[in-house]
Amino acid sequence: MPASGPFAVVGATGAVGSEFLQILQESRVPLDGLRLFASPRSAGKAVNIGGRDVVVEPLHEGCFRGTQVVFFSAGKGISREWAPRAVRDGAWAIDNSSAFRMDAAVPLVIPEVNGAVLDACRAPCIVAVPNCSTIVALVAVTPLHRAARVRRMVVSTYQAVSGAGAAAMRELEQQAHAYAAGQPLDTSVFGRQCLFNCFSHNSAVGADGYNEEEAKLLHESRRIWNDPQLRVTATCVRVPVLRAHCESIALEFEQPLSESYARTLLADAPGVEIVDDRSGNRFPEPLAAAGRDPVLVGRIRADWSLDAGYGLQLFVAGDQIRIGAALTGWRIAERLAPVICG
Amino acid sequence: MPASGPFAVVGATGAVGSEFLQILQESRVPLDGLRLFASPRSAGKAVNIGGRDVVVEPLHEGCFRGTQVVFFSAGKGISREWAPRAVRDGAWAIDNSSAFRMDAAVPLVIPEVNGAVLDACRAPCIVAVPNCSTIVALVAVTPLHRAARVRRMVVSTYQAVSGAGAAAMRELEQQAHAYAAGQPLDTSVFGRQCLFNCFSHNSAVGADGYNEEEAKLLHESRRIWNDPQLRVTATCVRVPVLRAHCESIALEFEQPLSESYARTLLADAPGVEIVDDRSGNRFPEPLAAAGRDPVLVGRIRADWSLDAGYGLQLFVAGDQIRIGAALTGWRIAERLAPVICG
Repeated sequence: MPASGPFAVVGATGAVGSEFLQILQESRVPLDGLRLFASPRSAGKAVNIGGRDVVVEPLHEGCFRGTQVVFFSAGKGISREWAPRAVRDGAWAIDNSSAFRMDAAVPLVIPEVNGAVLDACRAPCIVAVPNCSTIVALVAVTPLHRAARVRRMVVSTYQAVSGAGAAAMRELEQQAHAYAAGQPLDTSVFGRQCLFNCFSHNSAVGADGYNEEEAKLLHESRRIWNDPQLRVTATCVRVPVLRAHCESIALEFEQPLSESYARTLLADAPGVEIVDDRSGNRFPEPLAAAGRDPVLVGRIRADWSLDAGYGLQLFVAGDQIRIGAALTGWRIAERLAPVICG
Repeated sequence: MPASGPFAVVGATGAVGSEFLQILQESRVPLDGLRLFASPRSAGKAVNIGGRDVVVEPLHEGCFRGTQVVFFSAGKGISREWAPRAVRDGAWAIDNSSAFRMDAAVPLVIPEVNGAVLDACRAPCIVAVPNCSTIVALVAVTPLHRAARVRRMVVSTYQAVSGAGAAAMRELEQQAHAYAAGQPLDTSVFGRQCLFNCFSHNSAVGADGYNEEEAKLLHESRRIWNDPQLRVTATCVRVPVLRAHCESIALEFEQPLSESYARTLLADAPGVEIVDDRSGNRFPEPLAAAGRDPVLVGRIRADWSLDAGYGLQLFVAGDQIRIGAALTGWRIAERLAPVICG
């Protein structure tokens, strides 16, 4: 068994796992003893980390011993089984799946929003990373919520296919190639053409007509803001974009909030970059957000369908693999560092 | 000068003009004497109509004499100048531009919604066709508005590039080809990459932060429903789709309206086709709406962020060249036929 260092990644060959490895390398922390885990199908593959090949292992009993932080991004089934084992092995489990997000005993954290809840964590535990759409929305909206309390939020998303994983990105690219060559399009990931199309999010639809992605936006936002009265409705839609989600967000406030003060708040907000050039018609776009850290926020305007001061609209874009998953996981680890390192 | 028949089309070589010619042919009305007009650049070209070549003419003084109905889709400058001349020449001018939509003397008509206002038109006049996004939304929402009065409507659009004309469609297709070939993408129409991207609608943004497309949704809906108190807010976004717009619509009602009664109303509504398969995850998509007449309506659900009965959400898709422009123009002509034909 390889000697363990501070970090392990479960789901190391997936879209989010790969991004987490990228961020680890950018962060310049020592990566000696980095352990990579993935499904038996990927086990044995070598991943190049800073010029050194790290062999991917299958998960096995006791595999997290000696590791300080395990980042999970291999689906909720794997997390449900292995994150508690990581904690038993003495590691912090930062979980990007939905397995524990609604577990009242597990902190659900966006460091820019509610990072302070981590200060209460003194011993290894599971920390849940929210869903990508929730992170992108709440990084942008929280500064406004703190100033004027969001009463209701109406969200429509424009979600990249990569939210469904690396295979979905490859399929969309393949569809462009096949279209150009006049060949049939492979539609195995979503069961339909993505290129030049939009479609309702691919998660299951409940009896109330909302799909799981939409339900996450409501329930996770309530937990993160600790506001069970919050009203959120969402329509989640896939668009033929490789990477980075956009969201059209209409906010209704309890207290009045002017557009200009909202701009001031957003200009100072951690993780936010304002892109709002009305005369040049330059606003947040997924291509501009892809591969970058900040959530781009624009189309900032008073909602003319509400009483003056009580509504604002935004259009935001954020890289859902990065800020919407891996980077938020990494920032949780950074925030925990004093605790972890004692 | 060619002998005139009942119909003329101004902007005959554009995306909407071509669709109108297609609909004319499908309608099996006699097309003898059909006159086609376009910019001097296109004048002299021949367009094949039912196996017969019709030569495109430039506009000139008196060119509409003897024609009964002129369909305008060549931009608001042309309409502003030539639609009144068509009326002076004794023709009905059905105008697809924005030139007269806010003119209180000009009826603004979606036949499925407020076709009855045409009954008051007894002599040749201008009739304005609403903007595509307004038509797609109001065909779907009007049956619900009649039952429960829409107080507020929050709309986010997913608009095909073809709303910006045939050149925009060609550019998006070219971008797919160039991407597959690893060549630079032509971005002359929108000044940015459309493929794998989304961006705020390309119309001008006003001092209030809303763009013209969004303003049209508000002001045209108020006129068509004859409800100056109506509240509409919208965020209009282009997506990399060739044809057919989607809209995410959150409705707030004055009177309670159940989801099941809304379904009954929509099932009977003219121009509406319900596509709402929750278990199969099949809902309105632009590829399914493109080239077809109905507005597809799905994701019908009670809005859980509002008091029970007072809110509904929908996701709709409609071919904006067809129902959003040419077909609506043609249906106006059909509705006027008894008046026109005496």
